[in-house]
Formats: sequence, C-alpha cells, structure tokens
Amino acid sequence: MLNSKTQAGSGTAPPGEFGVKIIDMARKLAEWSELPDGLMCTYLSPAHKAAAAQLRDWMRAVGLQAEIDAVGNVIGRYASPNPSAKALLVASHYDTVANAGKFDGRLGILTGIVVAEQLRRSGRRLPFHLDVVGFAEEEGVRFSAPYLGSRALSGSFDEALLERCDANGLSLWSIMRQAGIDLPKIKALARRPETLRGYLEVHIEQGPVLLQRDLPVGIVTSIAGSSRFRVTVHGEAGHAGTVPMALRHDAAAAAAEIVLAVEQRCTAVPTLVGTVGQLAVPHGLINVIPARCELSLDIRAAEDATRDAAVADIRAAIGRIAERRGVTVELAEIARHGAAPCAPLMQSALAQAVTRAGIEPFYLLSGAGHDAEMFSGVTDIGMLFVRCGNGGISHSPLETVTAEDADLGARVLLDVIANMD
Amino acid sequence: MLNSKTQAGSGTAPPGEFGVKIIDMARKLAEWSELPDGLMCTYLSPAHKAAAAQLRDWMRAVGLQAEIDAVGNVIGRYASPNPSAKALLVASHYDTVANAGKFDGRLGILTGIVVAEQLRRSGRRLPFHLDVVGFAEEEGVRFSAPYLGSRALSGSFDEALLERCDANGLSLWSIMRQAGIDLPKIKALARRPETLRGYLEVHIEQGPVLLQRDLPVGIVTSIAGSSRFRVTVHGEAGHAGTVPMALRHDAAAAAAEIVLAVEQRCTAVPTLVGTVGQLAVPHGLINVIPARCELSLDIRAAEDATRDAAVADIRAAIGRIAERRGVTVELAEIARHGAAPCAPLMQSALAQAVTRAGIEPFYLLSGAGHDAEMFSGVTDIGMLFVRCGNGGISHSPLETVTAEDADLGARVLLDVIANMD
Repeated sequence: MLNSKTQAGSGTAPPGEFGVKIIDMARKLAEWSELPDGLMCTYLSPAHKAAAAQLRDWMRAVGLQAEIDAVGNVIGRYASPNPSAKALLVASHYDTVANAGKFDGRLGILTGIVVAEQLRRSGRRLPFHLDVVGFAEEEGVRFSAPYLGSRALSGSFDEALLERCDANGLSLWSIMRQAGIDLPKIKALARRPETLRGYLEVHIEQGPVLLQRDLPVGIVTSIAGSSRFRVTVHGEAGHAGTVPMALRHDAAAAAAEIVLAVEQRCTAVPTLVGTVGQLAVPHGLINVIPARCELSLDIRAAEDATRDAAVADIRAAIGRIAERRGVTVELAEIARHGAAPCAPLMQSALAQAVTRAGIEPFYLLSGAGHDAEMFSGVTDIGMLFVRCGNGGISHSPLETVTAEDADLGARVLLDVIANMD
Repeated sequence: MLNSKTQAGSGTAPPGEFGVKIIDMARKLAEWSELPDGLMCTYLSPAHKAAAAQLRDWMRAVGLQAEIDAVGNVIGRYASPNPSAKALLVASHYDTVANAGKFDGRLGILTGIVVAEQLRRSGRRLPFHLDVVGFAEEEGVRFSAPYLGSRALSGSFDEALLERCDANGLSLWSIMRQAGIDLPKIKALARRPETLRGYLEVHIEQGPVLLQRDLPVGIVTSIAGSSRFRVTVHGEAGHAGTVPMALRHDAAAAAAEIVLAVEQRCTAVPTLVGTVGQLAVPHGLINVIPARCELSLDIRAAEDATRDAAVADIRAAIGRIAERRGVTVELAEIARHGAAPCAPLMQSALAQAVTRAGIEPFYLLSGAGHDAEMFSGVTDIGMLFVRCGNGGISHSPLETVTAEDADLGARVLLDVIANMD
C-alpha cells in the first residue's frame, strides 16, 4: 500500500528549501504589526490589511488565483483541470494575539503556499481544486468573537457576534461597516459541503509533547471540546489569630482543595486536561481568614463523554468539599463547546505520508481550538502539528519553529495532497 | 481558700448595673468618629482627641485623678492610701480600625472605669494605686506602627516607628510634632518595673470560642506569638489546552498544596493556628497555566517552641512540594514576635473570681495581639476575655457584647482587684 504511492515533490525540491522559504515569509509577514517592538495583528487593523495584501501577492507570485474575500480571508486557488471538481481547503489564520509569535496560524498558510507552488512548478495536476486560505480572524483578541474567517467559509457565521464590543465599547459590526464590509456578501462565502473534498490544517503544536518525544510532526486525532466555569467559594471571615482551626470556614482552603481535585481528576485520563488559571482571594488580608475565593476552571478532552464525566466528577467533588467545610460554592458554566474529531481517512493519509518521510507516526490531541473545528461536520478535517521549540511556548515572542521541521511539515502536506484522489 | 475571699461589690451594685453603664459609654464614645456612618478613630485624628477628652472627663466624674499623657494615653488613678505603693494597671486602647466595632479595646477601659467608681463609692481602699489606662494607639492602622501607647508606658517605645509613613507619605513623627508631642516626654512615661503591681486587661475575645462553649468570660493563658511570611511560587506558564497534566509546573496547584499543608499542620495542635489570608495568581487567565502564585502565611501559637516547630515543618513541606512539582518557592519572613504568657498568679486570681461568680473557669489562648504583650517581662500580666456575639465577629460594625457579659466581666475584675494584696 505504502509503496504504491508516489513521493511527490521529494525528488524535485532540495531538502530544506520549503522550510527556508516558510521561515523567511513568516519573518517578513511579522513586520506588519500594530506594536513597535513585537507582533500584533488584529482584525481590520492597518497591519492586518497589509498582511492580507502581502499574502495575496505571494499567492499570485506562485501562480495561484488569489483574492481577499468579503470578510478578509485571503484565498489562493490552484485549480484542477476539472472545473466542477470539489475543493480541498488548506488553511489557517493570519491574525495574531498581542505580543505574538510569528508561526501560530501563519505557518499553515505559508506551508500551503509553498506546497501549491511546488505542485504548480512540477506540473502536477490535481483531481480537486486546492484552495490555500489565510483566515482573517481566529484569535478573537479584540472582540472576543473568534473564528470569524473560518465561520464565514464553513457556513457558521453568527450575526450575534457582530454586536460584541472591544474595550472601548466599539462594536465589531461598527468597524466592519467602516471597512466597507457587506453582511450579505459574508453570508454568500459559505461553502456548500458537497463542494468540499476536505480540510487540512498545518499548525504549530503550541505545547511540549512533540518536543519531549523528539518528533518533528504529529497527527491530530481530535480538537478538544471544552467547558469553562467561574467558581466562587463563600466561607466565613474571621481573625487569623482568634478562630481555632476546627471552627473555620476558610474559602481559600476550600478553593485549594478544589484546585487539587481538578488536577487529580484530570491527571487520571491522558486525553483530558483541567486548569485553574485564575485564583484569588479578593481584598485578602494577611490576618483575616478568607470569606471568599474566586477561581476559573477550564476542562478539555478529546471526547465529549470524557469531558462530561470529568465535569460531573469535579462537580461532585466540589459538593463534598463544600459540605465538609461548611462553605457554599457557586459554579457557573460560562462557555462550552464540543470536541471536533479528525476524520479517520485524513489521519491515516497523514500517517502514511509521515511514515514515508521516515518519521514514526505519532497521534495527539489538540487541546487548543483551531479553525479546523469550524469545518467539523461540514467536511473531513485533518490536522498536522509541527513541533514548537522553547519548551512548547506559544502566544509569545519566544515561539519558535525550525526550518527543518517546517520543511518536513510541507513535505508531508505535499505528499498527502499528491496522493489524494 | 475561696471562701476566705470577699466578693467585693457584689452586694452593693444591682446586678447588671456595670454592664448597662459600660454599653452606654461605649455607644457614646463611638459617636466620635472619622466616618459619617461607622466608627473610625485613629491616632491624633479630631475624633481621637475628642474620645480622649471624653474618657478623661468620665474618669474625673467618677473621682479619679485623670490626665492625658504625652503620647495621648488617658490615665485615671484611684490612689492607694500608701503614696509609695506600686500601681496596678487596668488598661486597653481607645483607638480603632476603620469601620470598627464599639468594644474592641474600649470595653477594657470602660470596665476599669466602672470598677474604679465602685471601689471609690464603696470606700474600698487598696494596697496599690489603681491606674485605669486608655492607650492612645494599638491598632497601627494609619502608620503600621501599633502599640504606641502601651510601648510608651512599658518602656519599649521605639523611635524607629516614628519614621513610618501613612498612605499619603506623611510620617508618624510629622503628625506627632504637629500635635505638639514632645519625644523626651514620651520617653519619660516609661514605668519602672519595680513600681508596678501588675497589668490586667479585659478585652472582647474577637473569636467564637466562648460563644461556642456558652461561656460569658474566659481566662487567657498566653498571647500568641506569630510569624508572618510572604510566599511566591514560580512555576511555568503554558496553554491550558496543550500541555498534558504530567508535564505541567503549575504555580497555583503548588500553592493549593501549600495552603492545605499549612491547614493540616496547624490543625494538629490546639494552641496553634495558621492562615493563608492572601492568595492570588497575578494577571491570571482562564486558559493559561499559572506561572506564578503569591500567598501570605500567618502562623501563631501559645508557645514559641510550638510555633517554631510548625514553621519548620511547613518549610519542609513546602520544600517537598516544590521539589515534586518542579517549581521554586520563595519564602520571606516579614514579621515575627514571641508569645507573651500570662502570669500564673494572675490566671489563678481570675479563675477564682470567675468561680465565685458561678462560672466554670475556662482557659484559652489569645490569638490576636493586645497591649498586655508590651508588659510581658515588665510585670505580671493577666487578661480576661469577654464573649463576642455574632459568631465572634470583630473589627466590624457587627461586633457585639451583651450588657450581661460586660457586667460579669466588670464583677470579675472588681473581685480580682478587691482580693489582690
């Protein structure tokens, strides 16, 4: 089976050329920024518009039919000889967080560009259109309205998001209108499922797993679903010197038990993670037993059932802690979204290409959300993670990818596309 | 032994009269405040000066020789027929915290006044001078320089405290100088140990122990010593979705273990308490594993050895937690003071008077600091706690004492003084 496939491109591009190009383009793209010393590129900012134009120009330079669409996505097509063919999307996003790394999102677009260039240059024709897409908005930094670009293309654009406001009270819709954006035209961007061959996304891992395993790439099995809660523990204030330990109803001690209960429950299952990222005794004093403690809870898992079971167990544990300590705990769910499993056929196509590249296929969960999620249930999705340096740090200027790893990611993607029917 | 003592005053004052007077005076004294709706009376404020004048006037009205001294203490003497007799101090403070209760500190002064009045009215002469003292400053609210009044009288006035500044950068010394206070005169206030018969302080418990035991008063065995620390846990930030549980170095989870280790260690010994009153992940985000968590630590015990052992065990536990989790922990001691044991003779005199009042003597630790501490090592100290209502709440407008309990406190104090040689 493996030997019947051709290793497209591997004979024509010198090893490393893809990687060098990708890193070079990522550096150039990062020069468009809202910050003087660091990268920030949020939706519809001048830097964002410049980055879109740059991507479009690069796509055109390698021979793609490229345009910026109504929502700001940059789409470059390497057309199939068959005009009525379906389209394979190779996509990720070009917007960034504040003080970002250069590769989060962008690596996937640039990998698509070098792969399309190689296919075109080598005269390789495909039985599907190849659409390399740079989504305009995924991070949701300014308006807490993430995935705007992929929502538009996947047909899940939600008008309610337009009412969200930034820190200055300016609505998303007001800045979109100012940019001349037309709502019906965004609606018209939705791709019908029957026109899609699939969706592939190359992305940096944003975590340490591949680094720890000494592997350049990994195959994503699922994008984790998540449940988020705001937890408030109400205890009883008291003088730190005068209330004996046995008579206390200490909100911070109860919160500490909750933190450890979350950790313990989530450590029990490999595809589950749970995090208390926010923890505070408001207006705490050194000599007062805390009356109140606030914490956040973020639970993610590869399968919804795994996450739901963990949430139920954590709720029960919190109930027992509250009962035993004589405190009350409010638990408010503030967000929830289901897991997006990657298509088995896409996983196996990626695994075969990884194997042909001489690398052991390794499967891992994506704990972070990605544009691919928006296409779950619309078309087959697949994701390839590329190793992050620096301990897996992302959303930081310390985010790194080596040219070798970026090159391997591009070769694997090229191989998958060349062998896809 | 018990029967050989006289129950001074119990036959002459109608039951409850002391209590009614004390509660009434506490209410009137609370009308002098820096706040329109609530009690606040800090050192050298107009309200503070008015409260001092009020106390002096009440003392004079019941026949005491009363003056306001160089540091602002109000001292009223019921003189012994023997001019060279020693003096018994019956004292507490009249300054308050912000939004305070009416009884913290003041109960002890007002109890002293009604007891002295009764002694004088009944013609009872004493073999020692009885000095009823209202200390000018104990809480350390504005300048974090507590015990100013009792330090002056006990000979432990510390000039370094004068350099402490309030929130506006104004030094304690600058406002003392403005009030015409003279440093050599403060130094001259120090009582020589050989001139003192002892020190007695009646104070509200500021905790729930007497309330829970259904007892109106309790005998203090010791004023706890305390050690305070600022603890900073340094872990490693990471994406809440992408870093597996086993690869995390979560500062908040480590802090949670520390909180519970403190609680567990301090629960093991009845005369020990430990509190984490401040706990925070600075700039925590719901989807980021905490890189840093800060907490405070306040450890108190009846005996220094007990506290030192607990601190050593907690340090060791923190070391083990840090080692196991791959985090680092900074532990900075920010304050430390030794325990002040009450004199056995004072404890037994109080116990005998409590017994004569028909109450079971109950001994307890003072977890909070009190002016009495300043006289530890100078003269014999004794403290009587009066039950707090409302679950033991203090430093709050919810602080309450019943007239019955205040009355009993005064009768016990009168009995102790009348039977003291």
